[in-house]
Amino acid sequence: MIEAPYKLINREYSNAYGETSTHIVKIGPVELGVEEPVFIAGPCAVESRESLFRIAEQVKKAGAHVLRGGVFKPRSSVHSFQGLGSAGNEEAIEALTWLKEAGQAFGMPVVTEVRGEAQVELVSQYVDIIQIGSRNMYDQDLLQAAARKKLPIMFKRHFGASIEEFLCFAEYIAAEGNKDIILCERGIVPVGKGKNFTRYMLDLAAVPVVQKETFLPIIVDPSHATGRRDLIRSMSLASIAAGASGLMIEVHDRPEEALVDASQMISPAELKEIIGVARQLRRIAVK
Amino acid sequence: MIEAPYKLINREYSNAYGETSTHIVKIGPVELGVEEPVFIAGPCAVESRESLFRIAEQVKKAGAHVLRGGVFKPRSSVHSFQGLGSAGNEEAIEALTWLKEAGQAFGMPVVTEVRGEAQVELVSQYVDIIQIGSRNMYDQDLLQAAARKKLPIMFKRHFGASIEEFLCFAEYIAAEGNKDIILCERGIVPVGKGKNFTRYMLDLAAVPVVQKETFLPIIVDPSHATGRRDLIRSMSLASIAAGASGLMIEVHDRPEEALVDASQMISPAELKEIIGVARQLRRIAVK
Amino acid sequence: MIEAPYKLINREYSNAYGETSTHIVKIGPVELGVEEPVFIAGPCAVESRESLFRIAEQVKKAGAHVLRGGVFKPRSSVHSFQGLGSAGNEEAIEALTWLKEAGQAFGMPVVTEVRGEAQVELVSQYVDIIQIGSRNMYDQDLLQAAARKKLPIMFKRHFGASIEEFLCFAEYIAAEGNKDIILCERGIVPVGKGKNFTRYMLDLAAVPVVQKETFLPIIVDPSHATGRRDLIRSMSLASIAAGASGLMIEVHDRPEEALVDASQMISPAELKEIIGVARQLRRIAVK
Amino acid sequence: MIEAPYKLINREYSNAYGETSTHIVKIGPVELGVEEPVFIAGPCAVESRESLFRIAEQVKKAGAHVLRGGVFKPRSSVHSFQGLGSAGNEEAIEALTWLKEAGQAFGMPVVTEVRGEAQVELVSQYVDIIQIGSRNMYDQDLLQAAARKKLPIMFKRHFGASIEEFLCFAEYIAAEGNKDIILCERGIVPVGKGKNFTRYMLDLAAVPVVQKETFLPIIVDPSHATGRRDLIRSMSLASIAAGASGLMIEVHDRPEEALVDASQMISPAELKEIIGVARQLRRIAVK
Repeated sequence: MIEAPYKLINREYSNAYGETSTHIVKIGPVELGVEEPVFIAGPCAVESRESLFRIAEQVKKAGAHVLRGGVFKPRSSVHSFQGLGSAGNEEAIEALTWLKEAGQAFGMPVVTEVRGEAQVELVSQYVDIIQIGSRNMYDQDLLQAAARKKLPIMFKRHFGASIEEFLCFAEYIAAEGNKDIILCERGIVPVGKGKNFTRYMLDLAAVPVVQKETFLPIIVDPSHATGRRDLIRSMSLASIAAGASGLMIEVHDRPEEALVDASQMISPAELKEIIGVARQLRRIAVK
Repeated sequence: MIEAPYKLINREYSNAYGETSTHIVKIGPVELGVEEPVFIAGPCAVESRESLFRIAEQVKKAGAHVLRGGVFKPRSSVHSFQGLGSAGNEEAIEALTWLKEAGQAFGMPVVTEVRGEAQVELVSQYVDIIQIGSRNMYDQDLLQAAARKKLPIMFKRHFGASIEEFLCFAEYIAAEGNKDIILCERGIVPVGKGKNFTRYMLDLAAVPVVQKETFLPIIVDPSHATGRRDLIRSMSLASIAAGASGLMIEVHDRPEEALVDASQMISPAELKEIIGVARQLRRIAVK
Repeated sequence: MIEAPYKLINREYSNAYGETSTHIVKIGPVELGVEEPVFIAGPCAVESRESLFRIAEQVKKAGAHVLRGGVFKPRSSVHSFQGLGSAGNEEAIEALTWLKEAGQAFGMPVVTEVRGEAQVELVSQYVDIIQIGSRNMYDQDLLQAAARKKLPIMFKRHFGASIEEFLCFAEYIAAEGNKDIILCERGIVPVGKGKNFTRYMLDLAAVPVVQKETFLPIIVDPSHATGRRDLIRSMSLASIAAGASGLMIEVHDRPEEALVDASQMISPAELKEIIGVARQLRRIAVK
Repeated sequence: MIEAPYKLINREYSNAYGETSTHIVKIGPVELGVEEPVFIAGPCAVESRESLFRIAEQVKKAGAHVLRGGVFKPRSSVHSFQGLGSAGNEEAIEALTWLKEAGQAFGMPVVTEVRGEAQVELVSQYVDIIQIGSRNMYDQDLLQAAARKKLPIMFKRHFGASIEEFLCFAEYIAAEGNKDIILCERGIVPVGKGKNFTRYMLDLAAVPVVQKETFLPIIVDPSHATGRRDLIRSMSLASIAAGASGLMIEVHDRPEEALVDASQMISPAELKEIIGVARQLRRIAVK
């Protein structure tokens, strides 16, 4: 009898993956889940065609494999910029087109977030990976709608979720017949009275724990976890040393001008240095 | 200059409510936000017409004002019963019809949860209050879609959300021109190593805090907060003593047979006793 | 075989208390654990003989049963006032003498906190209850040293502790042969990003949970839990409605002049009103 | 005007350390705070002279610099083994003597925990570093008593403490004129409903955050943080990649026979492999 609340993604109930092998998610020419870590980079939000192309070119040169860019932005305040996607249907299509074209221009698959079911159909026509953001982790209807598009899903842990819950909801995606799930740790709510000095608390033990529980690959997003540019390098290296299959990092060529989350953007030059060091670390850390 | 991240629902920026008065939400003949507390009761999930009518009759006799019943159930496991709404469109319509008819038969407005944007249009045709569940608190697109129906919204705090975040997302509803928002405290994630003996941790200070920050009424759901039948009475009375404008309590006439959350259901007789004592408490506690 | 990590205080392993009766802690003429709630009140810190006597007289008139006053104050900053006890041995003796005399003058047993083992011998000569503060909950050597004095122990839950841990450490006191333990809920660390508007998060479900797990009485400290004068009334009433055996409330006749925690002090007049209402609530809430 | 609650250890208020340099703590011939990471290893508890010597020899060969071994064990249950120190004064002296001798025999300074003020005088005569455990972080009297011994203090973060609180209490040690403080991150209480699969949640961002706030060195204890032997390697490597000045790891030559925390002990062979890889990682990760 199967007692675990997640079964389809459970290493123990699978015959194909043994005790340590990882399901490899293929995104065009990119393979995520292999020894070599995958780097996903780009601006928090797509702001303009020009700026996106400029950043895409630079992150590609820095060594990134996948281009990210938010079109529909989840925001805490209704009075903040919600991404071009929320400006209207035409603007959404325009921003998604820029993203797709920037990816093609520089040879990178692209990923963007769907924030609600109504956006799934549209977004799926432009991207190579559909992202489910942290705030939507529990949104089972959205998960199912996105899963049915048969594209790889980048699935971020909710900041209030245990690892068990995270995997239970990944199971919703697998139950639609889609096992191309890229799990993403991005920090949980801070605990304690007083300051912790970071936006969320990065739970890096989630990386090896998830790898023991499931055969799905897991990456880390140090940008949203820390919210601090000056911590991205150390948390990126720690993630790779912990065994993460990749990193998603927010990059802007003019960080101080970014419309969203300016404080956590790093420059393309910093990205390049991190990717270089991270690759060396991986080779040494792998058992 | 307005600095608070929520403005439309902020007591400080409103002229109409002064320092203590509450926005009264009218649900048919029921007024929520007045001195007399409102009791919302019914089964966790709508299971059958017969069972729903039986329970509706009994909670009405026990003193309840509003009938609740889940049609679309958010569940942690994709392998669990998801409510009749997830069985198909016909089943959803049937369950919603039963709910509406049970409400009419026993003179109670009704409330049910929408779990995703795709359900808003349908659900809004059958209910008097649209519920946004805890797991969807951050789902801004769903909030906006529901708000536009111009029905009162019962808006539950996410179990990982601070009070500030809770109010920031209520602001999404208000920004659509809908101020008939009923806030609902339902417990946050437990802290600490070892057992806390309840499902979530009920944060009752949220009641007076919310009343000072906003003019919106706030109720408490002790059923989901504790997950324990034997704690419903004490937490219900504590909520009313703390100043809550109402309670939402799960009731089943055959608790042990309930398809969902059987361990937290109380009987109609217990409900009646709680309502009686709660009303007396309110009269004494009011300053 | 006994599997619970706490046995001596476990309701299930006791023959004397049945399913609902509470161990009554006798503090001179005061009985804590009976139906009638006990009120413990006084300043956060003993500041001067004159001020202490003035406050003692007023809290007695307001209906308080036990006088509190801190001599050794646990503080987050080494640069803050640490209580008269930390000023030197002579000052500690003086402050403890004032406390004892104020109690005698107005017919109230007294309670003060011991912050370290070195203070136990001295403090035990002056007080009727020894308080172990939240920060020392895990300090097993201090617990044992205090327990051996055979005085009632007021034992506060640590703000990072689960209820199970709280009871495990109460067991350290009981294991010294001292069952006169008064448990005290005083709030746990807040969860979530953004403001919760209170110092800690009061976990009122701890009251009925503890009463089901153990036969020991439990009281609530709304002053430290909220840190806000304007929330003391509602949280006090909620605590009594939840079944607490008493309350510990910080009172100052000139709140704004208090050397420690000024923002959470209420006046003697407010205390009187709260005690009056709380007593009425208890009579109605008791089943 | 100085506004930070910690000043003496604050990088900003110090002239000696600039923006990045670390205070080097000298422990006999060992320097902690330099580029080369320091490894502290040994059994959770000192169990017997023979077993301790056997383990000491092996951890030394594996590359460890400092020997650890608990004599006074903080335990959640009064009914569990509390370390030889709690068996009586003679047993405490015996266990401390073994520890000192094992250190001398294999050329390693030694560290053990003091759990209460009464143990400080005795322990300080036998060890090179005094450890203040997680549960005693808030125990200001113990901190001051230990600090006055002028030995280096290994100071572990409480599992319910924010980083700000952690540093506020380190300030208590510094205020006694003792700046030889080794901070230690060892995990905080897990958040979320459901399983997280580790004992605590390792907060690795604490490493770079602490390094920016203060000039004190910080190490990581992956053993208590995870409670799982199979996660020690990945979390050790992640800690070093994040910039930690060292690691404290529990090692036993017969892990399954350990009297305390058997599930988190690794073997000397595993330690050796981790130390080897960690040193390589450090050289690459250093900027």
